[in-house]
Amino acid sequence: MEGFNLEEDKLKEECGVFGIYSNEIDEEISHLTYYGLYALQHRGQESCGISVKNGEEIKCHKDIGLVSDVFSKENLQDLKGNISIGHVRYSTAGGAGRVNAQPLVSTFKLGSISIAHNGNLVNADVVRELLEETGCIFQTSVDTEVIINLIARSYKKGVERSIVDALKFVKGSYAMLLMAENKLIGARDPNGIRPLCLGRMGEKYILSSESCALDSIGAEFIRDVEPGEIVIIDEEGVRTIKFAEKTGCATCSFEYIYFARPDSVIDGVNVYESRIKAGEILYKESPVEADVVIGVPDSGVPAAIGYSKASGIPYAMGIIKNKYIGRTFISPTQEMRERDVSVKLNVLKVNVEGKRVIIIDDSIVRGTTSKRLVNILRKAGAKEVHFRVSSPPVKFPCYFGIDTPYRNELIGAFSSLEDVRERIGADTLEYLSINGLLKSLGKDKGYCLGCFSGEYPVSTPSEDFR
Amino acid sequence: MEGFNLEEDKLKEECGVFGIYSNEIDEEISHLTYYGLYALQHRGQESCGISVKNGEEIKCHKDIGLVSDVFSKENLQDLKGNISIGHVRYSTAGGAGRVNAQPLVSTFKLGSISIAHNGNLVNADVVRELLEETGCIFQTSVDTEVIINLIARSYKKGVERSIVDALKFVKGSYAMLLMAENKLIGARDPNGIRPLCLGRMGEKYILSSESCALDSIGAEFIRDVEPGEIVIIDEEGVRTIKFAEKTGCATCSFEYIYFARPDSVIDGVNVYESRIKAGEILYKESPVEADVVIGVPDSGVPAAIGYSKASGIPYAMGIIKNKYIGRTFISPTQEMRERDVSVKLNVLKVNVEGKRVIIIDDSIVRGTTSKRLVNILRKAGAKEVHFRVSSPPVKFPCYFGIDTPYRNELIGAFSSLEDVRERIGADTLEYLSINGLLKSLGKDKGYCLGCFSGEYPVSTPSEDFR
Amino acid sequence: MEGFNLEEDKLKEECGVFGIYSNEIDEEISHLTYYGLYALQHRGQESCGISVKNGEEIKCHKDIGLVSDVFSKENLQDLKGNISIGHVRYSTAGGAGRVNAQPLVSTFKLGSISIAHNGNLVNADVVRELLEETGCIFQTSVDTEVIINLIARSYKKGVERSIVDALKFVKGSYAMLLMAENKLIGARDPNGIRPLCLGRMGEKYILSSESCALDSIGAEFIRDVEPGEIVIIDEEGVRTIKFAEKTGCATCSFEYIYFARPDSVIDGVNVYESRIKAGEILYKESPVEADVVIGVPDSGVPAAIGYSKASGIPYAMGIIKNKYIGRTFISPTQEMRERDVSVKLNVLKVNVEGKRVIIIDDSIVRGTTSKRLVNILRKAGAKEVHFRVSSPPVKFPCYFGIDTPYRNELIGAFSSLEDVRERIGADTLEYLSINGLLKSLGKDKGYCLGCFSGEYPVSTPSEDFR
Amino acid sequence: MEGFNLEEDKLKEECGVFGIYSNEIDEEISHLTYYGLYALQHRGQESCGISVKNGEEIKCHKDIGLVSDVFSKENLQDLKGNISIGHVRYSTAGGAGRVNAQPLVSTFKLGSISIAHNGNLVNADVVRELLEETGCIFQTSVDTEVIINLIARSYKKGVERSIVDALKFVKGSYAMLLMAENKLIGARDPNGIRPLCLGRMGEKYILSSESCALDSIGAEFIRDVEPGEIVIIDEEGVRTIKFAEKTGCATCSFEYIYFARPDSVIDGVNVYESRIKAGEILYKESPVEADVVIGVPDSGVPAAIGYSKASGIPYAMGIIKNKYIGRTFISPTQEMRERDVSVKLNVLKVNVEGKRVIIIDDSIVRGTTSKRLVNILRKAGAKEVHFRVSSPPVKFPCYFGIDTPYRNELIGAFSSLEDVRERIGADTLEYLSINGLLKSLGKDKGYCLGCFSGEYPVSTPSEDFR
Repeated sequence: MEGFNLEEDKLKEECGVFGIYSNEIDEEISHLTYYGLYALQHRGQESCGISVKNGEEIKCHKDIGLVSDVFSKENLQDLKGNISIGHVRYSTAGGAGRVNAQPLVSTFKLGSISIAHNGNLVNADVVRELLEETGCIFQTSVDTEVIINLIARSYKKGVERSIVDALKFVKGSYAMLLMAENKLIGARDPNGIRPLCLGRMGEKYILSSESCALDSIGAEFIRDVEPGEIVIIDEEGVRTIKFAEKTGCATCSFEYIYFARPDSVIDGVNVYESRIKAGEILYKESPVEADVVIGVPDSGVPAAIGYSKASGIPYAMGIIKNKYIGRTFISPTQEMRERDVSVKLNVLKVNVEGKRVIIIDDSIVRGTTSKRLVNILRKAGAKEVHFRVSSPPVKFPCYFGIDTPYRNELIGAFSSLEDVRERIGADTLEYLSINGLLKSLGKDKGYCLGCFSGEYPVSTPSEDFR
Repeated sequence: MEGFNLEEDKLKEECGVFGIYSNEIDEEISHLTYYGLYALQHRGQESCGISVKNGEEIKCHKDIGLVSDVFSKENLQDLKGNISIGHVRYSTAGGAGRVNAQPLVSTFKLGSISIAHNGNLVNADVVRELLEETGCIFQTSVDTEVIINLIARSYKKGVERSIVDALKFVKGSYAMLLMAENKLIGARDPNGIRPLCLGRMGEKYILSSESCALDSIGAEFIRDVEPGEIVIIDEEGVRTIKFAEKTGCATCSFEYIYFARPDSVIDGVNVYESRIKAGEILYKESPVEADVVIGVPDSGVPAAIGYSKASGIPYAMGIIKNKYIGRTFISPTQEMRERDVSVKLNVLKVNVEGKRVIIIDDSIVRGTTSKRLVNILRKAGAKEVHFRVSSPPVKFPCYFGIDTPYRNELIGAFSSLEDVRERIGADTLEYLSINGLLKSLGKDKGYCLGCFSGEYPVSTPSEDFR
Repeated sequence: MEGFNLEEDKLKEECGVFGIYSNEIDEEISHLTYYGLYALQHRGQESCGISVKNGEEIKCHKDIGLVSDVFSKENLQDLKGNISIGHVRYSTAGGAGRVNAQPLVSTFKLGSISIAHNGNLVNADVVRELLEETGCIFQTSVDTEVIINLIARSYKKGVERSIVDALKFVKGSYAMLLMAENKLIGARDPNGIRPLCLGRMGEKYILSSESCALDSIGAEFIRDVEPGEIVIIDEEGVRTIKFAEKTGCATCSFEYIYFARPDSVIDGVNVYESRIKAGEILYKESPVEADVVIGVPDSGVPAAIGYSKASGIPYAMGIIKNKYIGRTFISPTQEMRERDVSVKLNVLKVNVEGKRVIIIDDSIVRGTTSKRLVNILRKAGAKEVHFRVSSPPVKFPCYFGIDTPYRNELIGAFSSLEDVRERIGADTLEYLSINGLLKSLGKDKGYCLGCFSGEYPVSTPSEDFR
Repeated sequence: MEGFNLEEDKLKEECGVFGIYSNEIDEEISHLTYYGLYALQHRGQESCGISVKNGEEIKCHKDIGLVSDVFSKENLQDLKGNISIGHVRYSTAGGAGRVNAQPLVSTFKLGSISIAHNGNLVNADVVRELLEETGCIFQTSVDTEVIINLIARSYKKGVERSIVDALKFVKGSYAMLLMAENKLIGARDPNGIRPLCLGRMGEKYILSSESCALDSIGAEFIRDVEPGEIVIIDEEGVRTIKFAEKTGCATCSFEYIYFARPDSVIDGVNVYESRIKAGEILYKESPVEADVVIGVPDSGVPAAIGYSKASGIPYAMGIIKNKYIGRTFISPTQEMRERDVSVKLNVLKVNVEGKRVIIIDDSIVRGTTSKRLVNILRKAGAKEVHFRVSSPPVKFPCYFGIDTPYRNELIGAFSSLEDVRERIGADTLEYLSINGLLKSLGKDKGYCLGCFSGEYPVSTPSEDFR
């Protein structure tokens, strides 16, 4: 039951970034960043921070907690400047704790610098070792700290060139924002694994992990930052450096399946629509006769609507989430759980009692929640429970910024479909095929499917190193 | 924009109550009450409290804030006993502030007593005056305090009889829980305006404002407490006193329209289903050609699904609510709002752009939110916006536990339908008829429709006294 | 060691009160009360509160904690009015907890009323019983609540007369402040056991437990309120009602010995001077040859200075208190204490090493601290330790507002002087005689000596009732 | 009046350090450090922290606030290890804020390292510049960060040698603690400006700014760390490296005058005794006829006792400090101050009224407090006020870890004695001579007298660079 928080048995996105450049020192810059982070809060709920640059000096406020916990009116008013970057984080390569909250802020030969990063640098450890051999110290366990050190090492080439050089050192995934000199700089890894887009609001330019954050501040979407592109924004406008030779784009497919907000558009694909389509294709691949289709809130709902549309089986709300459960919720004891204390969820009996129910979830990770869901549906009187998953089985870990459990905890890694079905107790179980997933995204390549197929766009450490 | 919180332009429920009786002093009693209040949190978010009786002594913990803010593990462990009552509150007849949080606790001749109340006593002021003339003091401004004083006055008749006598003094609406001697006592007003139901979990009995709270602790629903019924629970089980002559039941219709959780069943009517039906009937009453039906989250969604079902026009998600907005959200300045900073809501463009949109909301109070919604739909490219409301126009204040604005703030009170349509900027606007509402509830009487019709089940003070 | 907080093994004062009357509604009234309570904080550190009257309405803010914890700028700005009363409390007859914090606030037939009380009503229980029989309810366990109920009962006689009548009902000690109608009212019990004085600052009148609080706000001392006097302050100035026939004054002698601040003057006696004199008389009564006199901080210091002055033996600082120890101090474990972890105190070795030391404390209650002090002096190298106490042995409980342990915990109650000396490990031990105490106060009667002699100014319940 | 906090018009010590080495991983290590910091709290009240090493890993908890605010039971239990260093800080060369709290923690080639520092590195800026040119980054503005970078640069020589090399780079004052590998390391600057001493408790070794912290945990004092000495503590015991050629010791004389706790012994001189002697010598240098000697609490009291002893004029308490004033005290408005609201201090009238008063303070910095003190003494009826200062006039800034105001704010910098006397309004004013100060310390050299004489033990930047 403690584990019966719908969010707990999901893959976790690790971060979101948001930055603004303005030609004028602006009262509003930190407020707008604050609203931007609110819109990206789903990408990380453990810690957050904003740093603001005003000429030479950078001010930063960051802490453990949600955006609403960490920032007060006074904090935001203290953060005055013309450039700002913000960050929300689920946790990191480097472990939790206030010291590892981002953005990181440092000074080096060319002045102050701040950096915020979504993604994972797969070779951070060896780069760090190398830097330590030259006498570097590290004050956090965030992989991003190597980037600042690499930049500081090559400062003689100037800020832009030293960033390009630093990025040539590192491998992995990143949507990264930096402030240095009087510039806001954004970089996206050569495969574009993590999303990053560019927007404008009057004279201000914005970089954001997702387009929904542009909407939230009333900014207009210009374009996605391209894989292997560095965007430099300063008083002369927006410039581009292409630091990587042409590589194939490989946007994380889980962004569409679960992470991103449905109202975002990433690399030209509308997230909501891709989920609806996934539901439709799922029906075509795995039809079943039933009386009602329900979705597991919140992210299973669009797929359920799509499944209903394609099949003609009516869609209904089947599960109610208690929206007041917070961080300080005191969990029921084991005893209470056995007696069915279930505060976080409730079945809407009227929609399942005596019915053949199709329940759609966006993914199955460990399977614990799925089992529990089947169980409460049966208790509420469902005659049959048909489980449908709007993505393929998760079989492999992610090395690019997603927190995946060890392989042996992934229910899809070593078990047959029939085994999984039996363990979760459903009458039938079907997943979307990899092909179906690609169809729902409208292209047959351009996506990272590593967690489904084990084939990654960048070479990764062997399992032993995890 | 500050007003563009979807919840802000709604009528506000004033309270929820939850109580448990156990034959044994039970470690769990306060925890179960805590979970029960979590499930009723939608009925009041301003303050909450739990009091527990253990033989003679009553312990109470209450404060301003959500259930998750007010209670810690330590608090709950301190609250040991065999009877417990809890309360969540939006605000009261008596004004906000910690001193007015419920449950109230007192001692009188027959020992300690605690009381929690959802509803409003329309003659509390005159009763209070009378009591003051006999030398009574009042330490809160909660109308419920008169009840305790009335009981204490007639203590010689014993607890049960003195409660009956006290209830004969007061007029209005109440779902009320009391602990006195070794009894848990529930009372529902003679018209049953506010809901109250009885449940059981093993040897324990539960009284709750809504059935969803029974589900949350794994208890089974027994029945609704009847209008004019006092339920007495003690070591001998459950007894009933009928203190009021047979009157017509007049359950608040707004419980079904907006207040209650969709997974509750009140007086035999399933809340979710009544909302689906309201949507269906709304289509039959006011059809319109369009491309898509969207619901205003959260309570407009079932009606939208119903409208879609009846009309065949596809349902889609049109509006995304940011679920992380909390109490401490720092609102955009007027300037920012004019530049369209809109953190709380976002339109799902793909579902409205270039389309004829039907938007369903459960009610219109002041109209400010409706206007704003029409506006952002148009900005997102909707070709037409047809506004449909799944309840009749709110024209009159409520005197029975709902916080309604002054009549001149109610957009439906003095304006014609055409006026309202023009003010909110929709292409067409239609409300559900009172008849349609009754149809959606399955009976043609038995409901309070006061806020729509101005006809109340109990005589009320004239407008001048508000 | 946990018990080795110098304050922990002392008798505890239970409360302090402070009130202001102004002809005009004054921005400053709550601020001045706040400063007054700061100056009286030594009289009670558990909870505090201020209530302010502005015409009809009374606003109150109170909570558990020190004055510095409970009040913020916003709180004080909210408390606007022309009359104010404040309270600090150690704990009460009624037990701790927020609900029992004072001032109490109520409304009754004649409007709102607020009350704050220092002292103890020895017949509160029987009065309460009587009131309950007439149908009264009680919402706190503070004895003061009976006063308000008594006043409300007899409201027909008007506020002033009903207060007089109420005071005739109760027995015990009180320095009491009330606000009702447009009046600030102070009352002191017929024996004047607890102190209360009157001051003025321009047009404003002040009532305070001690004169040091008048100094703190720059007010001038007018006079002590007399035993059995009610002082009524309103727009016409200050009036007096003598509600008790002439009785002997019996000011609590412990106020001079320990409770009161040294810069206060109570009933004509300067507190600091009385302590110096006690030290001088103590020398005359119990001289001893030694090299140095030290005082136990803070209240033993003046007596030590007096002893030094009379004897010619040099005074020196012998014990340093850590002034940063707060509420949240994490105490050493038993193990650590045995290895002499001693954060709260340190001996100033240079002043005791190799010396014959006279140590003066103001009183001995349980003796645990005294033993510990002797021990650390010896460890620091004192050749001899002569313990002198500047008050007589505490042998009996107090019923008038002081928290005394059970008699069998009072080391002086049943043990001979020699026994006590042996238990605390001193070379010699002497107390001030009762006669010496009276001499130090300058009069041979007019003081309550109950805790020393067992003779009380008011008849008290037998020990069995405690 | 806001400035009439006795502590506000004083020079401010900048830091205190405390560290423990144990051969075993010890449950108590963080608790003992916590108690040690409590005993050093007077050396810095703005922020504090503890880091603990357990084999490879270092854990650290630090924040803004007093020791009692920053640490909870849970924090301390999390900090498990066999080596620990702690820090209290007033503020730093680097400015306030959580990021600048100490200890600093980093990893470098040889593992994790933590550092805590009391003092000031006068050439930190140039060293930092040099390091930045080699590609270093800095994440705080604390001068101590250069030390870690210097160590990391020369890691190939091993930890001990690289520390020696780092210390050869820097100039200024420091009592510094480091943890690296399995060692606790302490270093004191070549002039021994800031104090540092070594203690033992069973098998544990302790390094502390002052000996009073050894007393607080029951440890025994072994010796002061010598100027220019590095002490290395590991499983083999205590070793010494002398990294600086023999230089003259120059202990900060203000440690004795004001900063250190009276129960500490620094470099062989007892702090309390030196203050008594300063008072005695002050009388010999500047006698005056009077009726009473009073001391400004807390640090002026021993000098007053000394003055009284030497002169035969009786000592008395003249000024009472309110001991409950905390961080959140709401200051009186300007208007209130003019009407003499004075919560923080009160004169003990009985000791000054009608008397010729000698008031002794330990130092005069800006003179604002002195003026105010003279003023309230006169208001309380003092016939004459003779101001005596138990140290010479402060005329020059400190560059070695003390926060001094700009020279033109130092009342002694440019004004004649007569001018100062007139400005503070005393009848006579005399300071202790530099010679007298040295006599009170028992040696005629070995002390830094920079703030009195402008002659510093280390060359310092010219005034322009401050």
